[in-house]
Amino acid sequence: MPYITGYVNLSCLRRSGSSPQFISQRGTHMGYPTVTYKEEGMREGMQIEDASIPVEDKVRLLDALSETGLKHIVVGSFVSPRYTPQMAEIDDVMARFTPKPGVRYTALALNERGRERAQQYSPPLDTGENSTYRPTLRCHMCDVFARRNTNRSQAQEMADWEQIVSTAKALGATEAGIGTNASWGSNFVGKFSNADRMDIFERQHAMWDEAEIPVTAVSLGDPMSWCMPHEVKSQLVEIKSRWPDIRDFTLHLHNGRGMALVSAYAALETLDETDTLNLDGTIGGIGGCPYCGNGRATGQMPTEDAINMLEEMGIDTG
Amino acid sequence: MPYITGYVNLSCLRRSGSSPQFISQRGTHMGYPTVTYKEEGMREGMQIEDASIPVEDKVRLLDALSETGLKHIVVGSFVSPRYTPQMAEIDDVMARFTPKPGVRYTALALNERGRERAQQYSPPLDTGENSTYRPTLRCHMCDVFARRNTNRSQAQEMADWEQIVSTAKALGATEAGIGTNASWGSNFVGKFSNADRMDIFERQHAMWDEAEIPVTAVSLGDPMSWCMPHEVKSQLVEIKSRWPDIRDFTLHLHNGRGMALVSAYAALETLDETDTLNLDGTIGGIGGCPYCGNGRATGQMPTEDAINMLEEMGIDTG
Repeated sequence: MPYITGYVNLSCLRRSGSSPQFISQRGTHMGYPTVTYKEEGMREGMQIEDASIPVEDKVRLLDALSETGLKHIVVGSFVSPRYTPQMAEIDDVMARFTPKPGVRYTALALNERGRERAQQYSPPLDTGENSTYRPTLRCHMCDVFARRNTNRSQAQEMADWEQIVSTAKALGATEAGIGTNASWGSNFVGKFSNADRMDIFERQHAMWDEAEIPVTAVSLGDPMSWCMPHEVKSQLVEIKSRWPDIRDFTLHLHNGRGMALVSAYAALETLDETDTLNLDGTIGGIGGCPYCGNGRATGQMPTEDAINMLEEMGIDTG
Repeated sequence: MPYITGYVNLSCLRRSGSSPQFISQRGTHMGYPTVTYKEEGMREGMQIEDASIPVEDKVRLLDALSETGLKHIVVGSFVSPRYTPQMAEIDDVMARFTPKPGVRYTALALNERGRERAQQYSPPLDTGENSTYRPTLRCHMCDVFARRNTNRSQAQEMADWEQIVSTAKALGATEAGIGTNASWGSNFVGKFSNADRMDIFERQHAMWDEAEIPVTAVSLGDPMSWCMPHEVKSQLVEIKSRWPDIRDFTLHLHNGRGMALVSAYAALETLDETDTLNLDGTIGGIGGCPYCGNGRATGQMPTEDAINMLEEMGIDTG
């Protein structure tokens, strides 16, 4: 067993048990990444459920989630009830829930109107004013899904990049991000390879290089559940190898094929203590995108299982 | 990234995609283990379901499973209908299903009476006459569960070991196995550590050493879903390190905490191409042990997800 190093992850020793729970096989003394966990049940969970769930039930769930110890909870979306009827009562939920000190509450807003609506509830809502300004270039890997999901083409998404970069430069951004959605595959056009993703990432990264703004983060969305653990691993390895400055990784993994938690574990084993891994999930694994073309056969990483695994691994979830 | 070796798992190259899907992080040119997969839905799946499922439905499910490409299907148990009423009609199922050539069918029998009953249906039932004779020493890690599950104490299980070894010696066995059940924890007494398990394995191994029969296999059962991927990994690493002759690993993992597939993936990443990994699962993830003390909150690794993952990883499931 040439790859046993006898390394003991010290963070595990806080836990009970008479033997070390983690022996590195990496050949180096690497620990796990820092993990931040975002509970998406009130947004991505709700948006695929029946639109008639009473406000009081939503408030009760949100209040219960606040008591679990979760550090970051997404409360919903400020979007048009025409497209997402489940969010029609977001204002009532905001007015009636009981914020818990120490929990970060955020909401999704896709345009200026949404951001203005969200601003009314800040605080307790964290609308991002105090967050690090890290402009990000993003697009969907699949044009069909881009149009269904956001009513814009992939080419339109890419056409925005120049403006995002010039704004970032004008505002003096000191770091930037790159990202894809529908990263590992699409129900409309099939699977994407590391090479497909790297082609997009190279183009995004080159634009930041040109602007002399360092790229420190990458996000990979998987709304249609195409992730596989070995492919998540090889993609992360390739990104880290190509751009060692990238230390912040966001994985938004869906679970329609049962691979979200497995892929998250693969990421935990691939990244190391110099990295941050941002994971999203939902209570009970509910949720999914209504525009994925497979009805309700979707779902996210179940928060209860994910947190249990992370805690058992001795990883603080921030 | 000192641990990237540039290694490409050639078995992946049979699959579509423009980039290698697996880059080893192990520091050595290791591939995945050989995997055998056993579908347990008709046995462990059924035994926790309603006892009144009609025989024709069971036959239809078994016949459908036979058409999926699964190579090893467990058809049920020849046990007392008093304790396992769901198996009362096993003879009818055996008489009416349509065996598919190339599929291995086996059944569980716990005593001589059960083995005699099973023998009536061989073939198509493989009752083990042609299998390698590999006597195995086993016990439950938890005495409470041992008594509930098999009506015998852990001490009684251990008291059998001497007889098993002397019979093996008399019959000229050339290899032997060791094993535990409720390996990672019990709903009655809590968690077990690597050290707890190694204590049992050391005692079992020492008895085979004394008899001069090489130990080549280990089995770890987890009927109460206490497995965690990093602990499965560290246990396998410890066994391989302690006894390099052990090359055959059986993991019977339950999914009550959502960790069965994650732990199986961890095992795939830990073992290498000189090893065999035997995995069990059930269609839809149904099933579980009725004596686990948590009612129906159990389930196994879902076969459809497991096989999808294995195939995507380029691993032939035997």
